[in-house]
Amino acid sequence: MTARVSVIAFCGGVGGAKLALGLQHVVAAGELAIVVNIGDDFEHLGLSIAPDLDTVMYTLAGVVEPQNGWGRADDTGQCMTEIERLSGPTWFRLGDRDLAVHIERSQRLRAGATLAAVTSDLVAAFRIPSQIWPVSNDAVRTVLETDEGRLAFQHYFVRRRCEPRVTGIRFEGAVDARPLPEVVAALASPALTAVVICPSNPYLSVDPMLAIPGLRAALAGCRAPVVAVSPIIAGRAVKGPTAKLMRELGVEVSAASVAHHYSGLIDGYVMDGADVAQQSAIRVATSIAPTLMTTLDDRVLLAQAVLDFAARLKDRPLSRAS
Amino acid sequence: MTARVSVIAFCGGVGGAKLALGLQHVVAAGELAIVVNIGDDFEHLGLSIAPDLDTVMYTLAGVVEPQNGWGRADDTGQCMTEIERLSGPTWFRLGDRDLAVHIERSQRLRAGATLAAVTSDLVAAFRIPSQIWPVSNDAVRTVLETDEGRLAFQHYFVRRRCEPRVTGIRFEGAVDARPLPEVVAALASPALTAVVICPSNPYLSVDPMLAIPGLRAALAGCRAPVVAVSPIIAGRAVKGPTAKLMRELGVEVSAASVAHHYSGLIDGYVMDGADVAQQSAIRVATSIAPTLMTTLDDRVLLAQAVLDFAARLKDRPLSRAS
Repeated sequence: MTARVSVIAFCGGVGGAKLALGLQHVVAAGELAIVVNIGDDFEHLGLSIAPDLDTVMYTLAGVVEPQNGWGRADDTGQCMTEIERLSGPTWFRLGDRDLAVHIERSQRLRAGATLAAVTSDLVAAFRIPSQIWPVSNDAVRTVLETDEGRLAFQHYFVRRRCEPRVTGIRFEGAVDARPLPEVVAALASPALTAVVICPSNPYLSVDPMLAIPGLRAALAGCRAPVVAVSPIIAGRAVKGPTAKLMRELGVEVSAASVAHHYSGLIDGYVMDGADVAQQSAIRVATSIAPTLMTTLDDRVLLAQAVLDFAARLKDRPLSRAS
Repeated sequence: MTARVSVIAFCGGVGGAKLALGLQHVVAAGELAIVVNIGDDFEHLGLSIAPDLDTVMYTLAGVVEPQNGWGRADDTGQCMTEIERLSGPTWFRLGDRDLAVHIERSQRLRAGATLAAVTSDLVAAFRIPSQIWPVSNDAVRTVLETDEGRLAFQHYFVRRRCEPRVTGIRFEGAVDARPLPEVVAALASPALTAVVICPSNPYLSVDPMLAIPGLRAALAGCRAPVVAVSPIIAGRAVKGPTAKLMRELGVEVSAASVAHHYSGLIDGYVMDGADVAQQSAIRVATSIAPTLMTTLDDRVLLAQAVLDFAARLKDRPLSRAS
């Protein structure tokens, strides 16, 4: 399958998954691969939970809960009600339908399967016409240094609702992790026409992937244009802690800041019309497009705009430094 | 707690649990201990399932599904529907509420807790006023030799619906297992007034417990009367494969056969009025009582009859051989 991949998108959870769905609508079936962050993964209730992989999978399968953008639509909480009765932890809620994926993944990982193999079979079961690739089969765990001490990602993100002030971010295991061979191969493939960095949190969703040795080099060596989409519109993040985190890290909350964060890595940057005034501050090619994705049409239109932009960049000398 | 136990009941699943519930109604709170078969336990979907422990627990907690006599009342099957979508095994159905117990047990066992410790905490969470003790913290696995080959218990019992012809029964691990220390201590305690062998399958539910070295000796040395209740009424088992199994093993399907099976182990035998003609063939003291338990009243009345019978046996010389 790898040889056929023409578009690769790097993606975190909810925000990125919206663009991933748009891309799935405009890229030919089988030619889209979504590379997903695993820094949020954790063990909970004895189960292996991979929140970003599941969000992307449920979104691309059309079974995601539409209000939250994560979890299964029409799910129930019978098991969690009983976990609560048994005085088990309830701060991370797993729906009854959702549980099936965690149970299946957990037992297969324990039996020695790779995360990529398990994910591939889940993708097949959900009849998803794209590849979904964990960025690595090795464990990478995002840990936040905060004013409440060191917090595992889900403890910061869900249990403490991103309230602690972040002073640093670590990606445990990243230095020993290897990128998924399929990702490296697809990045080197002549069939590739575009690499998209979805509007996910640069610090919490994209950086854990870039921290894996070899991945930056694979991106740098890739012949197709690399285009990022801004997760910031008019100084605000559409969803999640991106803006709060940028402030705590002492970074200006702006589309231009994110472009700067990706400098040397990207050839083009897609930003919202609200931020048109920042274009001159960005040193790579920019494109203006509506980046707020409310409806499915918004997602498809943005995906098409991103790919059109990449196609225009294709014949220009690559601007990213090597 | 052990010192206060005045009644011990040995129990398998559904049939035995009915009498266990009756006993819970007539024994003072905290003084009843149910010792439960673990030969049916197995790993499934990566979870540690203990069907008899759960049936006894749900029954004594008043949350058992009343028609089947196992599983949780008002349970749903959302997770299993999704397991099926993922092409997982569906022959052993786990309800959404039921799953909480398996998830909790599995993670605690994996973290090093004993089965007894996990069970004790579950019993507390369900506010059950009795002790529920797995007969051992070590694994014992019932395996059937059949005309379809060797089958693990649940494969025979649930997946193949007891259809294969049984030629032999093995209790793997029993010889290396140690009885739960609480069971041995309670059997030796002067506070004990009666030991009840519930009307469970003698071959599949009680024998796996008796196969554990030391347990027969502990029963033989116990000063309180040991009373078994017949699982056979008028040549038929109320539920389950007991009668079919006895035929396949070449044993007459009768209340007297079961009494004979327990010879040397019991001081008294409770049988249904339908089998009164067999009394003369039984070499221990017998008592006639309605053993078909349809309503809660049936269970309570039988439990009281069993304990009254044991009280009458108390001052007689123990008839079981040492």
